[in-house]
Amino acid sequence: MATTTGGKMVYGLIEGSADMVSLLGSKGAHASEMARNGVPVPPGFVITTEACREYLRLHHLPEGLWESIVVHVHALEKETGRRFGDAAEPLVVSVRSGAAVSMPGMMDTILNMGVTDDTWRGLAAMMGDERPALDAYRRFVQGFGSVVLGIDRGRFESLLDEAKAQRGLTFDYELDPSALTDLVERYKGVVREAAGAELPQDPWDLLRQAVEAVFISWNNPRANTYRDFHGIPHDLGTGCTIMAMVFGNLGLDSGTGVLFTRSPATGEKMLYGEFLTNAQGEDVVAGVRTPAPIAQLARDMPEVYTQLEGTARKLEAHYREVQDIEFTVERGKLYILQTRTAKRTALAAVKIAVDFVGEEVLSRKEALGRIGAENVPQILLPRFEEKAKAKAVSDGRLFAEGGGGSPGAASGILAMDPDRAVELAASGRNVILVRAETSPDDVHGIMKAKGVLTARGGMTSHAAVVTRGLGKAAVVGCEELSFDGGTVSARGTVLHEGDVISIDGASGEVFVGEIETRMPFPAELAELTTLLGWADAESRLQVWANADTPEQAKDALEFGAQGIGLCRTEHMFFDPTRLPHVQRMLAAGPEASRTERQMETLREQLAQAPASERESLRTRLADAETHVRESEQVRVFQEELGRLGEFQTADFYGILKVMEGMPVVIRLMDAPLHEFLPDDESLRESNPMLGHRGMRVGLTMPEVYEMQVRSIFTAAARLTKEGVSVKPEVMIPIVSHVNELRWLHPRLARVITETLAAEGAAVPYKFGTMIEVPRAALTAAEIAGEAEFFSFGSNDLTQMTFAYSRDDAEQKFLRQYVKEEVLPWNPFDSLDITGVGRLMRIATEEGRAVNPGLVVGICGEHGGDPRSVAFCHELGLNYVSCSPFRVPGARLAAAQSALGQLKPGAE
Amino acid sequence: MATTTGGKMVYGLIEGSADMVSLLGSKGAHASEMARNGVPVPPGFVITTEACREYLRLHHLPEGLWESIVVHVHALEKETGRRFGDAAEPLVVSVRSGAAVSMPGMMDTILNMGVTDDTWRGLAAMMGDERPALDAYRRFVQGFGSVVLGIDRGRFESLLDEAKAQRGLTFDYELDPSALTDLVERYKGVVREAAGAELPQDPWDLLRQAVEAVFISWNNPRANTYRDFHGIPHDLGTGCTIMAMVFGNLGLDSGTGVLFTRSPATGEKMLYGEFLTNAQGEDVVAGVRTPAPIAQLARDMPEVYTQLEGTARKLEAHYREVQDIEFTVERGKLYILQTRTAKRTALAAVKIAVDFVGEEVLSRKEALGRIGAENVPQILLPRFEEKAKAKAVSDGRLFAEGGGGSPGAASGILAMDPDRAVELAASGRNVILVRAETSPDDVHGIMKAKGVLTARGGMTSHAAVVTRGLGKAAVVGCEELSFDGGTVSARGTVLHEGDVISIDGASGEVFVGEIETRMPFPAELAELTTLLGWADAESRLQVWANADTPEQAKDALEFGAQGIGLCRTEHMFFDPTRLPHVQRMLAAGPEASRTERQMETLREQLAQAPASERESLRTRLADAETHVRESEQVRVFQEELGRLGEFQTADFYGILKVMEGMPVVIRLMDAPLHEFLPDDESLRESNPMLGHRGMRVGLTMPEVYEMQVRSIFTAAARLTKEGVSVKPEVMIPIVSHVNELRWLHPRLARVITETLAAEGAAVPYKFGTMIEVPRAALTAAEIAGEAEFFSFGSNDLTQMTFAYSRDDAEQKFLRQYVKEEVLPWNPFDSLDITGVGRLMRIATEEGRAVNPGLVVGICGEHGGDPRSVAFCHELGLNYVSCSPFRVPGARLAAAQSALGQLKPGAE
Repeated sequence: MATTTGGKMVYGLIEGSADMVSLLGSKGAHASEMARNGVPVPPGFVITTEACREYLRLHHLPEGLWESIVVHVHALEKETGRRFGDAAEPLVVSVRSGAAVSMPGMMDTILNMGVTDDTWRGLAAMMGDERPALDAYRRFVQGFGSVVLGIDRGRFESLLDEAKAQRGLTFDYELDPSALTDLVERYKGVVREAAGAELPQDPWDLLRQAVEAVFISWNNPRANTYRDFHGIPHDLGTGCTIMAMVFGNLGLDSGTGVLFTRSPATGEKMLYGEFLTNAQGEDVVAGVRTPAPIAQLARDMPEVYTQLEGTARKLEAHYREVQDIEFTVERGKLYILQTRTAKRTALAAVKIAVDFVGEEVLSRKEALGRIGAENVPQILLPRFEEKAKAKAVSDGRLFAEGGGGSPGAASGILAMDPDRAVELAASGRNVILVRAETSPDDVHGIMKAKGVLTARGGMTSHAAVVTRGLGKAAVVGCEELSFDGGTVSARGTVLHEGDVISIDGASGEVFVGEIETRMPFPAELAELTTLLGWADAESRLQVWANADTPEQAKDALEFGAQGIGLCRTEHMFFDPTRLPHVQRMLAAGPEASRTERQMETLREQLAQAPASERESLRTRLADAETHVRESEQVRVFQEELGRLGEFQTADFYGILKVMEGMPVVIRLMDAPLHEFLPDDESLRESNPMLGHRGMRVGLTMPEVYEMQVRSIFTAAARLTKEGVSVKPEVMIPIVSHVNELRWLHPRLARVITETLAAEGAAVPYKFGTMIEVPRAALTAAEIAGEAEFFSFGSNDLTQMTFAYSRDDAEQKFLRQYVKEEVLPWNPFDSLDITGVGRLMRIATEEGRAVNPGLVVGICGEHGGDPRSVAFCHELGLNYVSCSPFRVPGARLAAAQSALGQLKPGAE
Repeated sequence: MATTTGGKMVYGLIEGSADMVSLLGSKGAHASEMARNGVPVPPGFVITTEACREYLRLHHLPEGLWESIVVHVHALEKETGRRFGDAAEPLVVSVRSGAAVSMPGMMDTILNMGVTDDTWRGLAAMMGDERPALDAYRRFVQGFGSVVLGIDRGRFESLLDEAKAQRGLTFDYELDPSALTDLVERYKGVVREAAGAELPQDPWDLLRQAVEAVFISWNNPRANTYRDFHGIPHDLGTGCTIMAMVFGNLGLDSGTGVLFTRSPATGEKMLYGEFLTNAQGEDVVAGVRTPAPIAQLARDMPEVYTQLEGTARKLEAHYREVQDIEFTVERGKLYILQTRTAKRTALAAVKIAVDFVGEEVLSRKEALGRIGAENVPQILLPRFEEKAKAKAVSDGRLFAEGGGGSPGAASGILAMDPDRAVELAASGRNVILVRAETSPDDVHGIMKAKGVLTARGGMTSHAAVVTRGLGKAAVVGCEELSFDGGTVSARGTVLHEGDVISIDGASGEVFVGEIETRMPFPAELAELTTLLGWADAESRLQVWANADTPEQAKDALEFGAQGIGLCRTEHMFFDPTRLPHVQRMLAAGPEASRTERQMETLREQLAQAPASERESLRTRLADAETHVRESEQVRVFQEELGRLGEFQTADFYGILKVMEGMPVVIRLMDAPLHEFLPDDESLRESNPMLGHRGMRVGLTMPEVYEMQVRSIFTAAARLTKEGVSVKPEVMIPIVSHVNELRWLHPRLARVITETLAAEGAAVPYKFGTMIEVPRAALTAAEIAGEAEFFSFGSNDLTQMTFAYSRDDAEQKFLRQYVKEEVLPWNPFDSLDITGVGRLMRIATEEGRAVNPGLVVGICGEHGGDPRSVAFCHELGLNYVSCSPFRVPGARLAAAQSALGQLKPGAE
């Protein structure tokens, strides 16, 4: 950030405004904005962030700054009728940090500046009470001592505790003036001892040191860490706001509070907040006394409440956003100390945005821009009852914490293996499956469980991906867990099968015992439906869903998907009733398939052989036919293929029927063979991700793909005859060379033609390919000549492009890469635009140049990530496809992209 | 290939020429060329390949063809003074197939056309003997019966055997006229029975059927397979040459022979060939009588020999190539039947090319184009004595056949594990290491063995790559082998440890027992040196070598390398004296490295902390320092790092000294940690190729890379002080993001500066990166800002770009991909230009656009593949780097590329 030196370094509040956030910091700019607009703000001024940056560069106050501060303090003296350091009517101010970006609590602030040995009595006289004046002095010494002089805050705290203990008191405010006088002296003693000098008593000197301390606090480790974590630049600097102190602790006509202009939990239009009579702001934060609901203020000080309500609505209308307001009442007079946009749940954000449209505060397009698309999924899932969860925490039932794998909350009894999960679920219990990690072998257990907890793996581990697809809760990578003889333990608690646990898949928390969950209320979802309707009207990009079963397809439709972008056929193979058949088929397959291909070759040779060769070819063919007739492996292979074909026909019938009239992209088998036969050493591979899978099995054992398309088109033909309109699309995985499609397509087309002829129906369909191997993207111009559609398998494409094995990378080094900022983010969560995105651009542009009608979509998990959706929009894709539960968020992201509200991530 | 119908379909010999190969076929075109140039060729004519293509399209002779043939037969009658079908003076012809590209023996030919019941006596009269005439008739019936009528050739053969057996004869030519008359009748009986009709006797009808059979034979399965294998297009068609028959079996003044105009084994200028008196060409091929050396002809028929020698030199000079000539002497008159460019060994090819330059037949540039660069390595390696190997074959000592993994031949005793190999070698024996497959754990055994034999893996398997690097012979993927209780068996032979075997790493053959080997003779290499000197003068591309040890570096220099493009540091870690240290270091590393980094973070925080935080940070730092002092893991880690540092310093000292004045690119550790600690489950990865390796270990455990650069520059500084000029270049593997270099480079630069300061020497160096991950190529413009050189790791780049795990792919599906022509070739053997090559082009062009001085090379195995070298030349790379033994071939390929004689492969 460029530094313009020599500019104006101090602004009176009415000189500033809300659009000067980067110069004055958010707090200073908004205090100015309020002051300009007649909102009752304590008088004051703001030192610019630019002055702070200069200070940090020079290591001393820039020239002229101090003189400006003095001028503004004098102006403040005039406005308040008090004087800084005056023994009779002293001016007391706060010195607050505040950057352009909110960094709550990360930097330092000093209150009660101006209270000294000389002035506290004058302050007491003005307050009409010695206690609050001495208390202000005590607080000042503690604040100045710790912030400016670097004395451990604990040393003051322990003196305070001691003073209360000696007198048998519980609360700070019970200390009487003599006790406070004594405490102030002891505090000064701490300063003397730690700093080697008396506490300065010149208020100007103190102020100068406080301003410097605020500037320095920009660079404290806490603030640095926070900025690292939130991606905030380190060179912004902080503003410093100096305001007259107002006191809420001057009696029952005084007090302090915070409020939201609408409920941050539900979005309901109301004043939502708390008020503490006869107290300072710090006391609310410290939580020593329980504040009353804001409604109490309406009864106690009705005029102040009316003024507050009017001010709240005025601020909300002015900022066109829900506000989070801090205020103080000093002897019946209202002061607004701070206002800012309120944080709220996704649920509340949706209701507020829709209500604002109704109130004509926002246009529909603006409302769409107000919701973080990444937060939408949490609206749709069961969640813990807020109070029940808080109670579980305070009861000490937090068992462990891992990563949020799949949002939603669930309680159930613990099952340690998938078969037990199935059994326990069959007995009617809710089950949470707990595993070190999951694999495709566990899928039947996951299907029956309410949620999954794993010790290893991240957001893109098997457990996380599968549960998100199923809309089930999962906590993953919970490394605290240790397993031992059928138990799982963490933090000293040992749990057994059958014990009840609760998991929060959004936060990653795991609790012992049950916690009540609830689904979103219908009214909550009504507003989301409205909003997404507006979204669809703006989008250029369609949103499809990844769904493997009719049930998932129904979910997808409910969430507004316009098609199925990925139906994974091999997931159907892992069903325990089918897996044995799949295993027998695959074990017999290589030999059987080889025999079949030999016969094919012989038949072709015979057809074109000259007379001289026919006799011997005929003999060899007859031998081969005998071999086939007598081969046990061929028999088993054919039999199991037939049986699986029937299963698959039923699968496809179901899903195509649900998706009537919409495209259903069916990906032929992709999984490495080894996943089905983990004990078969001959199938073991050193790098299965780069091994014998997808199209490569399609080439070495073409019968499997032939069976799959036969099933698809048998189902499609039957539905067509029943009057159901179907749009199947056949998608080939792991293609890296155009010749693979040239080899495969005619074979499959022949099977499709035969199948449709046998069923007596015509079914239009598309033939296309995954683009998930870098070479496929690089040669898209060739491949587009043989495909009607592309679908980016962005998970695999990311793996190959980075040479990252997802599981290995996330376990071994990827976290550290992100932590060290070597990578800006985990590229499995959000697309790497520069590398992977370049391949996607090449594929899309060069594919469409050859085949202008080419439909291009994405079906990796990135399809549900808003920043990635924005990139897909920019590339001009036709659709994104993601888990059903991520469809609503993707619909919103698509609209925001079209409206320019959401941009692709850039490093 | 376009078909122009309606053109001239038959050419008299003197109408054709050598540049009409595609129209007349090679045989027809060269017979014409000879006829035009006064070489004594039997008179005749040629039917075009175009006519053949038309025939195959129409399934009958195209219009006008037969009429043309008849006209040309009549012309032949005039020229010879004989008449087709004439009982007194019959014309007898041959009907030969012959395509534009040589396909030896793949298509059909019919001889003795024109001998019938009516004409054989006339022929006998002309020959002065009944026996050869009847023999010609017998052969005709057999040829026509099998080729045209499709009768199993075996049925004729068994009648012939029977006839000899009945009469107690050994050779065909011992059958007297009455026996032959009887045999002809029996042959006609076979035809009658198999074809259901008498053998036609109309010579015109027979001729027409023979021409059609020649055309059809273009498409026989044998020919199709051959074309598939050699990549010959299927739509060329064959020419058909019809010539008057000449007979070498008319007595002692007749005969037949073949000769090369120079020795095909050594290239020596001499007539090299064989001659069989009183015989037809078929008899030479059949091998029933042993021919005499050609020198015998000089004694028996000195005039014919002189004429032959003159003709041979004339043909050689005419074609400017060594010729392979077939000839027949009929009653003292020489006929040249065929001439073509002679196949010869690489050794001979080099000598001949260099000699041709001396004889002013060729220019130096032309000579360079005459050698297949891919054949050069075989010149440099030990080979079996030709006769000893032939004897081993005829003795039935061929044990098994696998793939050629690394050329060269070796004999030795069999060792079944690497430790035994080391022991046996230490006892002074030559050892062949036999393993199912090899891994880095076997390297110490491989180093001590003369050769390696494996049951699994292809040209790019571990065994093949390591042995090629070492210049040792290897046969790999020998799937016939089976292992059982310390024995290895194949084809029914069981071998034990200590049995002697011999392997030919070029052919893939494995023999039982010893076979004598020899090294190339110095004189053989002298010509190669000459040729490569000419090559270097033409090249734009330098050739560097991959070498890990001073010994390999010396080899590299001998073979003409101009630098080391890849020195793999981790290979040094597998030495059995070092591996335990490496293992202890890596086991302690993660914990130790984490502790070190925590302290680093604390020190940084302390440096910038405000006063208020210093106290607690100082405490934490002190705790951490205590922890480090007391940590056993940190102690072990530091100790082993130090020890390995000393080993590595010695390694680098050695290699830099050998390569004085030349660049040495040292790649920091790349291997996955798991390779060093195979039993450590915590290091196991699901896809190690895409896992925690290279730069990723450099980031999580930076101390290892720091140790390596410290060693490099300690060695470099010492050599510099000794007056040796060194040019070390530090190369980082597995980089995918520019930030990795930004993170690593300053750390390493600091170590280098410290090291050089401590040693008191200045050493210039370069810092660069492998480009082996697709993302690195795609973002080369960014990376080039942080690197002084790029080196393509084309093996890994191919793996990632195709999503092929090399070992898995070659074992499971890649062969079938090539066989089905889905891939034009194995992309690990020769670069995939379209995909991988595109990434290389992007990286080179975009990298140089940012950094014009960027040096770009390749260090994958492709650097030694001529077709890939041509691509690297075209891309404008600075160098290719390959195994030392492949350097000479690469030098030649670089020159051929510059001369436009070698082009990158295209699909």
